[in-house]
Amino acid sequence: MKILSFESSAVSAAVCLTDGEKLIASAFQNCGLTHSRTLLPMAEQLLANVGLTAREVDGFAVASGPGSFTGIRIGVATVKGLAFGAGKPCVGVSTLEAMAWNLIGMTGTVSCVMDARAGQVYNARFRLDGAGAPARLTPDRALTIQALGEEIGQDAEILVGDGAHLCYTKLIDTCPHLTRAPAHLVYPGAYGVAMAALPKFLAGQAVDAQQLDAVYLRRPQAEQMREKQNNGGNSK
Amino acid sequence: MKILSFESSAVSAAVCLTDGEKLIASAFQNCGLTHSRTLLPMAEQLLANVGLTAREVDGFAVASGPGSFTGIRIGVATVKGLAFGAGKPCVGVSTLEAMAWNLIGMTGTVSCVMDARAGQVYNARFRLDGAGAPARLTPDRALTIQALGEEIGQDAEILVGDGAHLCYTKLIDTCPHLTRAPAHLVYPGAYGVAMAALPKFLAGQAVDAQQLDAVYLRRPQAEQMREKQNNGGNSK
Repeated sequence: MKILSFESSAVSAAVCLTDGEKLIASAFQNCGLTHSRTLLPMAEQLLANVGLTAREVDGFAVASGPGSFTGIRIGVATVKGLAFGAGKPCVGVSTLEAMAWNLIGMTGTVSCVMDARAGQVYNARFRLDGAGAPARLTPDRALTIQALGEEIGQDAEILVGDGAHLCYTKLIDTCPHLTRAPAHLVYPGAYGVAMAALPKFLAGQAVDAQQLDAVYLRRPQAEQMREKQNNGGNSK
Repeated sequence: MKILSFESSAVSAAVCLTDGEKLIASAFQNCGLTHSRTLLPMAEQLLANVGLTAREVDGFAVASGPGSFTGIRIGVATVKGLAFGAGKPCVGVSTLEAMAWNLIGMTGTVSCVMDARAGQVYNARFRLDGAGAPARLTPDRALTIQALGEEIGQDAEILVGDGAHLCYTKLIDTCPHLTRAPAHLVYPGAYGVAMAALPKFLAGQAVDAQQLDAVYLRRPQAEQMREKQNNGGNSK
């Protein structure tokens, strides 16, 4: 089963084509350019390079949140467009679960962390046994870096995600057994998205383009600010 | 220091751009198309996508062997051309060492294996400690799969490379603690090439385009066959 998978929930952008568990092609970039400029060209070039069209892919997958509102919206919109255009099913997966999948082969507890600004991170923790699927230890949630540090305490834990360096710097004094994922895996790739999506495709849980939705753990900052203004009587 | 690195020593082709240890962009494909068709376009697209030209890269790196004679020749020729054209230094690294670097973050003994045909593999073994550089346990060599199996014996060992599935299938009965690297890392990517090359660049061991050479552990099969024919008096 050929799946084209997308990851654009944070600063990096990634696309990959898989057939079952086999990685056929992948592209990744983390160069500061906007995903709206990079993501679809990366997918087009990747398909062209392997000699396939979007209609020859069996389905599309995307990291649908949590993460950057703009990044997630671009990823989900791209996959909605592709799935609608090609008439193929699609699957949205947890951005945090996908990150844990990118570290399969490693052993230990993984904390997937995305910078959610305002002192918070989006986080979920998983247990990796060196081979099989990551075992989820917590739900996806938004919490303060301090609260995450209190949860980790003296445990050995591998940080992965665009919040890994931030959390490492803030927490290493109180959580001395923290490490960071290797530099080529610390930013989310698309292979983890494919692996998190594959069981959903196989279980018949794929949806059509209309049904695919972004999953935000918090409301956009613009909405929060508007409400704050409204409540403060400053709505004009 | 920005390095553009190439890996085309086996069935897959890969390119990446790094800045120090940071991965800026990468592309990988393993779809059966010839590297002469895929490798340079992948590099051109990758540079275009991040908004750089070849002259803005500080150096070029390539997995220069052992491996497929044709694959290595394409990789080395591509890097020679780029380095000459851009007037930048280049570095060749062991294909097998680069594979071990791709697994940094994992812990254990790694056997890097490339299918060398005729019952042989190109192999080197490394020790990974979960963080730092792979520690080399053997030189790069060509040996029979059986001889590798006798060396591994009852040890736990992670197979990586395009020979991983072959060796796993042939050896799992006699070497019960063999495992294979995760599917997205089992075929060589270019990040390992960059990480194996970086210390050489920093130590001033880079060369110019003319000096870069492929490293074959065996002579090409065509040469071996010609000699056999000559020795057999069948040289006409």
